Amino acid sequence: MVTTTKDRILEEAAKLFTEKGYEATSVQDIAQALGLSKAALYHHFRSKEEILYEISLKALWGLVRAGEEAMAHPDPEEALLRFMEAHARYFEENYPFFVTMLQGIKSLSPENRAATNELRDRHEANLRNILRRGVEAGAFRPVDVALAGRAVLSLLNWMIRWFRPGSPKRAVEFARAYHDLILRGLKDGDPGAQGA
Amino acid sequence: MVTTTKDRILEEAAKLFTEKGYEATSVQDIAQALGLSKAALYHHFRSKEEILYEISLKALWGLVRAGEEAMAHPDPEEALLRFMEAHARYFEENYPFFVTMLQGIKSLSPENRAATNELRDRHEANLRNILRRGVEAGAFRPVDVALAGRAVLSLLNWMIRWFRPGSPKRAVEFARAYHDLILRGLKDGDPGAQGA
Repeated sequence: MVTTTKDRILEEAAKLFTEKGYEATSVQDIAQALGLSKAALYHHFRSKEEILYEISLKALWGLVRAGEEAMAHPDPEEALLRFMEAHARYFEENYPFFVTMLQGIKSLSPENRAATNELRDRHEANLRNILRRGVEAGAFRPVDVALAGRAVLSLLNWMIRWFRPGSPKRAVEFARAYHDLILRGLKDGDPGAQGA
Repeated sequence: MVTTTKDRILEEAAKLFTEKGYEATSVQDIAQALGLSKAALYHHFRSKEEILYEISLKALWGLVRAGEEAMAHPDPEEALLRFMEAHARYFEENYPFFVTMLQGIKSLSPENRAATNELRDRHEANLRNILRRGVEAGAFRPVDVALAGRAVLSLLNWMIRWFRPGSPKRAVEFARAYHDLILRGLKDGDPGAQGA
């Protein structure tokens, strides 16, 4: 795969936005880090906000695709595990894009935010779909799937606050531990012995 | 209680930091919103960062106290419920202070961050203490209390991303629903019938 100037701009911008924050990073900072002139950068993107939007779209599309591969598994418990693993793995492997996307939403224009919200909602709908299948199949309790879905995404997304790539433990390992916790709860002594 | 100029500055600053972000808010913006001169404001605080630090300290002390009141309950399950309710209630009732504190940590100086981290760690240690008591009493499974505590705080803290004060449903109601979910899990059909 060829890395274009456009790709390089997105990668460098995502890194700077993650390190310094979107507001504190200027187009000049991005151009300088790449050894480009501001004019050369504006040849590819009209504004800093457009760069943020492209990064967010890329991150969300990748996340949605990873989630949809996971949700294809017929067993709801296994599909949920794979969905959580996929989300955590995508986060770790695309750290600057993912963090920029999650932190940058509030800085997008209303139109661009609508487009990213649609993808975010699609990812959440996919997760609810897994939970609904589980409830219908009797694998899960009749929980409020909106609430349970939000809980799962809270666990995974809050990782941007404490997890750093390159830590001894992989993000996907935390996702597995969270899956076990959310599945069995704090009280359940022997889940294998129970029916639905 | 008398509202001092200092209090008014903190309140207005917390509101502006929450709405516009810390980086995008200037000392001039805060002074202007209060009808003060910049010089008058600098009479009370040496810098914008000092304002952020005072807000963060206030928010964290309030949160720690609310959590410590909750953890005093002898029953671990009830203590956990009260802790989660107290955290969510404190968040909703002190929204601008809470959001500023959670979002502002990265903008604090290393020394000030060390002081706020200490309080944050104390709050988390209190939660782990409840969980450990529950495990020791056989009320909870022998879970990893660090992981389970982090999960509980992820659920509660991620609320800054989707919950807005004045919504039809109170934050504390979501905390109760999360408590039920984290206690019973997705799979547990009849927790009342089980031993530890």
